[in-house]
Amino acid sequence: MTQHVKVATRELEEFVKNVLQRSGLGEEDARISAEVLLYADRRCIESHGVARLERYVIELKTGGILPRAEMRVVHETPVSLVVDGGGGMGQPIGYRTMQRCIEKARTNMICMASVRNSNHYGIAGYYTLMALSENMIGISMTNSAPLVVPTHARDAIIGTNPISIGVPAGREQPFLLDMATATVPRGKLEVKARHNQSMPDCWATDEEGLPSTDAARVLDNLKNRRGGGLLPLGGGTEETGGHKGFGLGVAVEILCGVLSSGEVATDVYGRKNQPSGVAHFLGAINPAAFVGLDEIRENMDHLLGLLKSSPKAAGQTRIFVAGEKEYDCQDCTREKLPLERNVFDTLNRVGEPFGLRLSEI
Amino acid sequence: MTQHVKVATRELEEFVKNVLQRSGLGEEDARISAEVLLYADRRCIESHGVARLERYVIELKTGGILPRAEMRVVHETPVSLVVDGGGGMGQPIGYRTMQRCIEKARTNMICMASVRNSNHYGIAGYYTLMALSENMIGISMTNSAPLVVPTHARDAIIGTNPISIGVPAGREQPFLLDMATATVPRGKLEVKARHNQSMPDCWATDEEGLPSTDAARVLDNLKNRRGGGLLPLGGGTEETGGHKGFGLGVAVEILCGVLSSGEVATDVYGRKNQPSGVAHFLGAINPAAFVGLDEIRENMDHLLGLLKSSPKAAGQTRIFVAGEKEYDCQDCTREKLPLERNVFDTLNRVGEPFGLRLSEI
Repeated sequence: MTQHVKVATRELEEFVKNVLQRSGLGEEDARISAEVLLYADRRCIESHGVARLERYVIELKTGGILPRAEMRVVHETPVSLVVDGGGGMGQPIGYRTMQRCIEKARTNMICMASVRNSNHYGIAGYYTLMALSENMIGISMTNSAPLVVPTHARDAIIGTNPISIGVPAGREQPFLLDMATATVPRGKLEVKARHNQSMPDCWATDEEGLPSTDAARVLDNLKNRRGGGLLPLGGGTEETGGHKGFGLGVAVEILCGVLSSGEVATDVYGRKNQPSGVAHFLGAINPAAFVGLDEIRENMDHLLGLLKSSPKAAGQTRIFVAGEKEYDCQDCTREKLPLERNVFDTLNRVGEPFGLRLSEI
Repeated sequence: MTQHVKVATRELEEFVKNVLQRSGLGEEDARISAEVLLYADRRCIESHGVARLERYVIELKTGGILPRAEMRVVHETPVSLVVDGGGGMGQPIGYRTMQRCIEKARTNMICMASVRNSNHYGIAGYYTLMALSENMIGISMTNSAPLVVPTHARDAIIGTNPISIGVPAGREQPFLLDMATATVPRGKLEVKARHNQSMPDCWATDEEGLPSTDAARVLDNLKNRRGGGLLPLGGGTEETGGHKGFGLGVAVEILCGVLSSGEVATDVYGRKNQPSGVAHFLGAINPAAFVGLDEIRENMDHLLGLLKSSPKAAGQTRIFVAGEKEYDCQDCTREKLPLERNVFDTLNRVGEPFGLRLSEI
């Protein structure tokens, strides 16, 4: 069993912000980054939350993330932006780009942005939610370190490339899809390896590019670049639809890296101790571009109602629509957050050189 | 073995056009519809080609498709359209809407259209290709008859809801994704049933909503509305990622049916002998909205090169990027097209009341 400790949410956010600031980020960048990281923990998506702080701190030190980078808009039309992140921290780049998209969509109805030279921006759904809280439709995608093996290939060539789409509803919670285009993230393999369990053969391939059920072996291969990696959504064969997940992953590489003239596929994280070149695609759509907010809310309630009230499969009691599980997460709004003991310990190890300490409550 | 006969492409297109015109469509609508149907056969996607002609003719007769419907733009901004198809034939509605999107994107950079009250529009990729031939990025999606079972549900509630995205390249063929968000189309189950073969358990569920390998049973259940149906991409469990395919399918319902105040999910094809209410989402993006056509072409060649030249899995000789298999289809540009004998016979049966006959060569 994983041991948990509780911390005060406000103290944790302040701690993360201070660590990032002492690592070189400007105050506002540190504040935004802490907010994005905490958002993941608040929604119980711990893999993308404060557990990643150490990695960011290391990259800020070794040149992977340039703490004082200035992002700039290199091309702009009334409905689009090409942004160069300058190798800076991904969260403030994503945040500021989405803010501009929302502003532009307010008057021009639609704005799409392709962003190059950024870094890991945390959870894709954060930016979608920014649009949702302005009653707009949000889109957020990013490429990432190459971990996914194309259909028929041996090696990991593209990222796990998440797609997030958010649409406001009325009585119902908004629709908030946020899904990697790989079947599962690497973290799921780590859990299987830790428990010595075999994994489904649609998750990953071995060093020859063949579907594997041995999580420890796949992780070891990935670490030592011996081939293999995660499988796209749909698994390892065309018969099970793997080429579709692969196609979606490539579409994400294109919208993020091709439309911005940024890095793609194996070029991402291609140079040690240099900015990763992660690229994003962000967009906001004003409901007034279509039938308007009121009708969209009504239509959404109708659709979500149809889905959720439909008869359940044998043994099932509930149909979950994208986003619902995270809305249900009990600790989202509480003043206290549970952290795994080892995450808590790591945070304090990271804070120590800066004289920062997080306390258990 | 399926028997094939060859027909002259030009004669086939003329035959299809004439049958549709005699069934009540105006000449231009009939011409566009024939072109879209032939396009599928030209690219060896026979399931969406002239094999469907009989179904359209029946629907034109029974009130499912209104032959003289007028489509109208019910809402418009510089970058968006809401179109009401009036229950008309899907292909001309899709074609004319995409044409307007392309025109608007030429000056305004982006145009997205949500279309209600249409009908089956053939293959999603046709409309994407219209944008590609104008050197634009194309998007095309549609909802469809409810055949897909949500994760944890018992019954088919949403459509197979294809997503198509096309992006121009330089030396390489354009990227042209065109994928249903179900693992496989119903046609694949029919092949398994015909050959008495079991199917992978990620394709479909039985009447209790549990993964099944018995294709004949699933088809029979679907026909008699006893529950079960096709599974979303990712299969029948969250462990294999089925909730992601389901999420994508819902996103398509939203973009098509919610943004246009059209029909969604089980409402589509919900009333016998009335227009189906199929809804589409179409979009064109001008490369000048981002880094421009020349850079996008170069970046695409680089990305597609990285993917295609990467090492192959054991036993594989080629990595296919979305669209490549169809570009390779040998009969695409020929003056003759192969048709299955039973499709050929059906076409002639459909043509007979109109005195129209297609000849074998």
